[in-house]
Amino acid sequence: MNTQKPYVIGVDLGGTNTVFGIVDAQGNIVAQDSIKTQDYKTAVAFVEAGVACLKPLLEKVGGIEQIAGMGIGAPNANFYSGAIEYAPNLSWAHDGVVPLAQMFSGRLGGLAVRLTNDANAAAMGEMTYGVARGMKNFIVITLGTGVGSGIVINGQLVYGHDGFAGELGHVKVDHSANARLCGCGRHGCLEAYCSATGVARTAREMLQLSERPSLLREKNPDDIESLDVFLAAQKGDDMAKEIFNYTGLTLGEACADFAAFSSPEAFIFFGGLCKAGGLIMKPIEEAYNRAVMPIFRGKAKFLVSGLMNANAAVLGASALGWGE
Amino acid sequence: MNTQKPYVIGVDLGGTNTVFGIVDAQGNIVAQDSIKTQDYKTAVAFVEAGVACLKPLLEKVGGIEQIAGMGIGAPNANFYSGAIEYAPNLSWAHDGVVPLAQMFSGRLGGLAVRLTNDANAAAMGEMTYGVARGMKNFIVITLGTGVGSGIVINGQLVYGHDGFAGELGHVKVDHSANARLCGCGRHGCLEAYCSATGVARTAREMLQLSERPSLLREKNPDDIESLDVFLAAQKGDDMAKEIFNYTGLTLGEACADFAAFSSPEAFIFFGGLCKAGGLIMKPIEEAYNRAVMPIFRGKAKFLVSGLMNANAAVLGASALGWGE
Repeated sequence: MNTQKPYVIGVDLGGTNTVFGIVDAQGNIVAQDSIKTQDYKTAVAFVEAGVACLKPLLEKVGGIEQIAGMGIGAPNANFYSGAIEYAPNLSWAHDGVVPLAQMFSGRLGGLAVRLTNDANAAAMGEMTYGVARGMKNFIVITLGTGVGSGIVINGQLVYGHDGFAGELGHVKVDHSANARLCGCGRHGCLEAYCSATGVARTAREMLQLSERPSLLREKNPDDIESLDVFLAAQKGDDMAKEIFNYTGLTLGEACADFAAFSSPEAFIFFGGLCKAGGLIMKPIEEAYNRAVMPIFRGKAKFLVSGLMNANAAVLGASALGWGE
Repeated sequence: MNTQKPYVIGVDLGGTNTVFGIVDAQGNIVAQDSIKTQDYKTAVAFVEAGVACLKPLLEKVGGIEQIAGMGIGAPNANFYSGAIEYAPNLSWAHDGVVPLAQMFSGRLGGLAVRLTNDANAAAMGEMTYGVARGMKNFIVITLGTGVGSGIVINGQLVYGHDGFAGELGHVKVDHSANARLCGCGRHGCLEAYCSATGVARTAREMLQLSERPSLLREKNPDDIESLDVFLAAQKGDDMAKEIFNYTGLTLGEACADFAAFSSPEAFIFFGGLCKAGGLIMKPIEEAYNRAVMPIFRGKAKFLVSGLMNANAAVLGASALGWGE
C-alpha cells in the first residue's frame, strides 16, 4: 500500500452509469460524481468525459498528487492487459479491445490505473475494507442477474493464465440431460440456478410442478422476480422458503467442490439475494458441511459482504488503486 | 532458489519404502538409498533410521553443508505445520500428528525441511525440472490408485487456508442418485471414475451392461485392472477403447470446471494411466474444448508429465528443498 498518498480513485463502470469516487484508506468515499456510460460514440470521448468529471473531485482533495492509484471495475475487463475486450453491452467497446487503463493513465499524468471485473473488484473491496480484512484465502460469490466470483489465494486475486479466471458461476452443478440452459450457451451452470433470474426460474418450475397453494400464485408466473420470492418467504410462504432452500443447497454443494480446490477460510456472498439472510445463508452452510470432504467440514466461514451498500462497486474498484 | 548450495534432499515417503535422494539443480539424482517405512515402532525411530540412511549419501556430495534444503512427499502431509496428520496407512502416524519436518530438521543441523503430499510434490517437480518450467499457472493431475492434484497459481502451490487444498479427485462429476461411491465416503467424486480403480470399475460395468464381445471377457471381471484395459485397447479392442474414451471425457469435463476456477496454461497428467497416451489424452482434450466456456476454448495445453520415471516422486519432493 502506498502510504505517501492518502487517496485512491474508484470507478464503477456499468451499463448505464459510470461512477467516479475518491476514497481514503479507511474506505470513506470523500467525493463522488458520475457520467452516463453510453452517451459517447467512442472510447476516447468517454475517457475525455470521465477526466472532466474527475477534475472537480480531485481539486476537492488537493489534486492528482494526492492520489495513489486508480481502480476500475468493468464488464469484460482483463486485469493483465488493462483492456475491456468485446463487451457486448458497451456501445464503444462491443466489437474491439479498448485499452482503458492506459487511456486514463495517459490523461492523468501517468497515474497507475488497474482494471478488473466487478466480482474481482468486490473481492479486493472485501479484503481492503470489508469482512475479509486480514484473510489470505477466501472466495467472494456475487449473486445478481448472474453469478460472479472473485477468488483470493495467498492474499492475491486469481486471474489465471489469461486474466479470465474466477468464473465460478459457470461451473457445472447439473450434469443431467435436462440441465438448465445458461446464458453462456452451456447447460447446468451454477448461474442458471442461483442467480436472481435462476431463483425466479426455480419459482416458475415449482409452481408448474404442483398445485400447492402459494402467495407466488398471485402473480403472472412470467413476471415473478427473486424479490417476489423473498417477500413471500418473509410472509412465511412455504414454497418461497423451499425455493431459497433449494438455491442455498445448490450453492452449498458447489462451495464444497470449491473447497476441494482452494480450501478458503471464508465464502463471502454479495448481492441482492443475500438480503434474504438466514433464508439462504443457513441452507448454504448446512449443505456445504454435509457435502464437503470430512477434512474440510466445519472449517469455513459463510459471511455476507461487509460492503452491501450503493457504493460497494466504487469501493471495490478503488481497492485496486492501492496496488500490491 | 538458494544458489550457494548445489544440492537438495528429496524424500518419497510411501507406505512400503521411503526413498532418500540427493538431487542437483538440473534434476539429476546423484545419490539414493531407501529404508522400509513400516519397520519402525515410532516416528522417532523412523527419523533415526532415515538420518542413518542419509549419512553416507551426504558424505558422497561433501556433507550437509552442500545441501540447500530438504523436501518430503508423504501421505496426509500438511505443508503449513510440516506434520503428517492421522495417516491411516502409516503404523507410526495413524493416530496422531507427527511433526516430521521439525524432527528431521533437528537431526540435520537445522536444515530447512518442507513437507507436502505426493501430488503437490509432483507439481513442484514439474515446475522445477519438468514440463511446467517457466509456467506460473498450471494443474497437475495424478492418475493412480486415486486421483490427486497439485495446483499452481501465480507461481505458487495452492495450499489453502488449512494446508489441505488441491483435492480435485474429490470434486463431484456425477450428481445423480446412482453416482459411484468414492473411497472418501462421498458419492460421484472424480476419483471414483478416473483413477486406475475407477477405470477397472468402468470395465466391469460395461461388461455387465451388454453382451458385446471384448478381449476383457477373457478375465474374471473381479480381476480386471486398468492395465488389462490398456493392453486390450492396444490390441484394438473396441470396448477397451470406449473405456478410455469415457475416462477421458469425464476428466476433460472436470478440467473445464477447473478452468473456470483458475484458468491454467496447462493441465499436466501423471501416473500409470498416462501410458495409454492418445487413447486417454485425446478424449480429455476434446471433451474439455467442447465443455469449457467459449472464452477458455482452445487455450489450455494438455501434457503428460516430464517426470514419468521411477524417481519422479523423489525429484518432486526435492523441488521443495530449493525454497521459494
